[in-house]
Amino acid sequence: MKGLHIQGIGVSEGIRIAQAFVYRAAHGNAGGASAEWKPIAADPAVVEAELAKLKEAKARCAGELERLTEKAKETVGEEQAGILAGQRKLLDDPAFYPKMEARVREKLEPAPQAVSEIVSQVASWFEGMTNDYMKERAADIRDIGSRLLACLSPGERAGLEGITGEVILVADDLTPSDTVQLDPAKVVGFITRTGGATSHTAILARSLGIAAIVGAGDAVDGIDDGDTLVVDGAAGLCIARPGEAEAEQYRLRMGQDLERRKSLEAYAARPAVTADGTRVELAANIGTAAEAGAAAAQGADGVGLYRTEFLFMNSPSMPGEEEQYRAYLEAAKLMEGRPVIIRTMDIGGDKELPYLQLPKEVNPFLGYRAIRIGLSRKELLLTQLRAVLRASAYSKVKVMFPMISGLQEWRQAKEILAEAQAELRQEGVPFDENMEVGIMVEIPSTAVMAGQFAREVDFFSIGTNDLVQYTLAVDRMNEHVAYLYDYFHPAVLQLIRTVIEASHSAGKWTGMCGGMAGDPLAAPLLLGLGLDEWSMEAGRLSPLKEVLAGLDRQECRELAERVLLLDTPQAVRQALEEFRESKSV
Amino acid sequence: MKGLHIQGIGVSEGIRIAQAFVYRAAHGNAGGASAEWKPIAADPAVVEAELAKLKEAKARCAGELERLTEKAKETVGEEQAGILAGQRKLLDDPAFYPKMEARVREKLEPAPQAVSEIVSQVASWFEGMTNDYMKERAADIRDIGSRLLACLSPGERAGLEGITGEVILVADDLTPSDTVQLDPAKVVGFITRTGGATSHTAILARSLGIAAIVGAGDAVDGIDDGDTLVVDGAAGLCIARPGEAEAEQYRLRMGQDLERRKSLEAYAARPAVTADGTRVELAANIGTAAEAGAAAAQGADGVGLYRTEFLFMNSPSMPGEEEQYRAYLEAAKLMEGRPVIIRTMDIGGDKELPYLQLPKEVNPFLGYRAIRIGLSRKELLLTQLRAVLRASAYSKVKVMFPMISGLQEWRQAKEILAEAQAELRQEGVPFDENMEVGIMVEIPSTAVMAGQFAREVDFFSIGTNDLVQYTLAVDRMNEHVAYLYDYFHPAVLQLIRTVIEASHSAGKWTGMCGGMAGDPLAAPLLLGLGLDEWSMEAGRLSPLKEVLAGLDRQECRELAERVLLLDTPQAVRQALEEFRESKSV
Repeated sequence: MKGLHIQGIGVSEGIRIAQAFVYRAAHGNAGGASAEWKPIAADPAVVEAELAKLKEAKARCAGELERLTEKAKETVGEEQAGILAGQRKLLDDPAFYPKMEARVREKLEPAPQAVSEIVSQVASWFEGMTNDYMKERAADIRDIGSRLLACLSPGERAGLEGITGEVILVADDLTPSDTVQLDPAKVVGFITRTGGATSHTAILARSLGIAAIVGAGDAVDGIDDGDTLVVDGAAGLCIARPGEAEAEQYRLRMGQDLERRKSLEAYAARPAVTADGTRVELAANIGTAAEAGAAAAQGADGVGLYRTEFLFMNSPSMPGEEEQYRAYLEAAKLMEGRPVIIRTMDIGGDKELPYLQLPKEVNPFLGYRAIRIGLSRKELLLTQLRAVLRASAYSKVKVMFPMISGLQEWRQAKEILAEAQAELRQEGVPFDENMEVGIMVEIPSTAVMAGQFAREVDFFSIGTNDLVQYTLAVDRMNEHVAYLYDYFHPAVLQLIRTVIEASHSAGKWTGMCGGMAGDPLAAPLLLGLGLDEWSMEAGRLSPLKEVLAGLDRQECRELAERVLLLDTPQAVRQALEEFRESKSV
Repeated sequence: MKGLHIQGIGVSEGIRIAQAFVYRAAHGNAGGASAEWKPIAADPAVVEAELAKLKEAKARCAGELERLTEKAKETVGEEQAGILAGQRKLLDDPAFYPKMEARVREKLEPAPQAVSEIVSQVASWFEGMTNDYMKERAADIRDIGSRLLACLSPGERAGLEGITGEVILVADDLTPSDTVQLDPAKVVGFITRTGGATSHTAILARSLGIAAIVGAGDAVDGIDDGDTLVVDGAAGLCIARPGEAEAEQYRLRMGQDLERRKSLEAYAARPAVTADGTRVELAANIGTAAEAGAAAAQGADGVGLYRTEFLFMNSPSMPGEEEQYRAYLEAAKLMEGRPVIIRTMDIGGDKELPYLQLPKEVNPFLGYRAIRIGLSRKELLLTQLRAVLRASAYSKVKVMFPMISGLQEWRQAKEILAEAQAELRQEGVPFDENMEVGIMVEIPSTAVMAGQFAREVDFFSIGTNDLVQYTLAVDRMNEHVAYLYDYFHPAVLQLIRTVIEASHSAGKWTGMCGGMAGDPLAAPLLLGLGLDEWSMEAGRLSPLKEVLAGLDRQECRELAERVLLLDTPQAVRQALEEFRESKSV
């Protein structure tokens, strides 16, 4: 007998078995369909009273978010706390709360109506974007709206406090603030009806070690409170009321999974060292300053890629120099002296920025993006470079330019950097005169010309995601050609070797911050090719340290020589799999 | 004093000065806004009479087109005759004329109304496409519609017969059948209000040697009949009523232009030979079988690129094996024994094919196109390869695959070719067992791996247009980044060298069929790099032969060595311009 199989999007690995706890969010439905409402009396006293209620609710809401942020720092780390801190900050945004006050004052809307209206407006603004990351931000907006509504009528709260034993949560959706309150000792997994792979809730689940599936659709209605549930987070599979054989099989796998998790945890505190004693530099990719905290906690040797575009994308208007400076400095401080490589903003392509009014393009990946915007709208790049330079006075930061396709662009970018330095010198503002300046290698031309670039740059960082896309002319988001996307393509490997060798010949170094860097299968090859720095999602650091600990550098060099002679991605994969098997015997 | 300057799109080079002849097309306005009309009587006799009128008009129209086709063959060559022959063929298309009959029969529409309706439907079908080439086909449809309408009421014709002396034609638009009737001895130039760069009218003008500007907009209303006009086709500039100094200057340039044209004509009959006596293979790019005639007339050594996708795009449904076979054989016959390289269809990207129902893509240039379609929809490629193989029995054809990104794709394509060969063998259908099979090199990975490919392919053809786009991650159709598109980028040059050297090491050869091959500035560099075959628009052959005649191969080799060390496209261009100047001194 088999149980009910429900397929969703797996967003957090892990196999868990527990009883279902079917959760119905009790707080208000901000930003949903507006109920009927009547205007308040046009009496100044009534209006002021309504405004006072709204203000009080805001204060209560702010207090809750601050407390939750502190709690999150202790339980799930800085990165996740940053999500709640971001919500707290949004409460003060001029495009948010003051507009609610204005509606009460000018349209005589009751406070709950005003909250719903503004939340609905801002959320649909985000939802209208084609970018998934931005769409997911609408959930944050609705989350804070619900909290505000709940704070307006404090009697009606209901929550997850009813959970006593170990459960798997079943819900329509979980907001980040729901998720951060989950106690991983009690809630070992969850499955939701809606939600996408890039939501904050997904990030939080991974960080809490909760096995999680989102977007399972109406199949969740087949789960009743108290049902036995299996959640396989990697496969995105949930089984309700499993048969005995199924349950037994998953119980076994759950045991192995929990054991493996424990053994990996030990690596977080250790540096990455190969079997022959070579120290390898492993860094983290971050999208927000707060994530640097999680990176440090996972034992990252630094930040290999700080994607500053999220600082721009999470803001309704262009962040100024001061705001950028504080963000860069915060990330650097959280890394406690370990280097942080700040990449100037990579907007365009699939990342929109409404206030920049970028053109609609037929082929956005081959279009106006990243350094191309920075060079043609110089004030943007100049401001960002001033902020980075100011942070360099107090911490070890480096800067790199994305989407460089030729030396002329690199030299123009350097000129703008020199201008920023000259301005700061003139103003008497301190900065590190020796800050390292590098480039992303993600366009084939730049890989081909690595020898010429190596004379002028301080370092390279290979962005495999884009490099593979352009080298193979494949948009990996396009389901019809995604099968061709493969960083093990021999041409890609040859370009990677060209870049690493060119940097070493010139006494420079090469990092890698694309998806390939975090792939354990690629590790022996990259070690053999002489990669100097590896940067990846913080969660991948420990598994990679474990792999590196089993590798001998000389052996990997020989492997790389052999692999570089192969002529198809399939042959490369097979050789790497055989090598991995030979190690695990 | 200056005349009225009118800027349009220059589509055919040449400087001409003559009197304006303002032409108002007198025939019907097929496919335009429908005038009011009344149904014919529902009496079978009336309906049959209306159908007879329509049939008679069709026959008259067919006769006219056939005569015009013959005339075009004599005056402007096979390519242009092919345009009119295409219109003639369309008259018999099941999606065209029979639908007009159906409207008369079923909806009781008068014949002119039925013609207008169907022309309007088919034309807007073409106009709705995003591809410029397809959009321009709407003009052909409207052209044939107007002719049909005119044939329905033969009394109302008026034409270009009034022209006696040398004139420059001023018109709203010129249809291909207007244009082919132009006598270049009388009509030395034209300027039109509407029209685009890729229209058949533009092709015809170049072929007739008529200086031409299209899309000049409402500024043409400033020109009166009999005005003195200057047309500078290269600059897209027309000057009405020029001042004396202006007129004098352009008269001088017109003299030089006509002289240069005459001297270039001499090259058409000669083979391409360098100053040191090296014979260079210059071939033509063609889009239709008929264009092979023009290529042969221009002295092409063969067809370096037969873009078969136009055979597919100009058809309302998938052309069968027989139709393809006849087209390939026709092209080969027109080349009279000189080799014809047939490229399997490059659909997708910016080339749509409605009956294939290709997916909408976020980045079509990085998507499902060319060989990727051919490999996943095997029956398409198999049919095309059978047609090519059958043509190989009677003429010297070669085949090449577009958008190959790795050896696995090449091997799959070869397997399908082997299957086609096996089928034909089984059926006893003859083909050339030794037909050469090559690939386009237009994806960076394939250039990087040229050494490995060279062991297996018979030849390479470098498609610079796409190769540059992918190598630099630049969509050259995107105005915001087009400044970065440059085939003189050092990385592109290095890839070209890699490919040529790899082919020679393996005893194979390399051609080039992208825009770079026809650029006189690039010629010494490509000669120096050892390019074996150059393929370009037929009109560019003579100017290139002239350049090659002045070049010494050893000197060019030294130039290439020097140029390959330069680090920016700007430096490369400058070096090539200096070299050119040193030659012309």
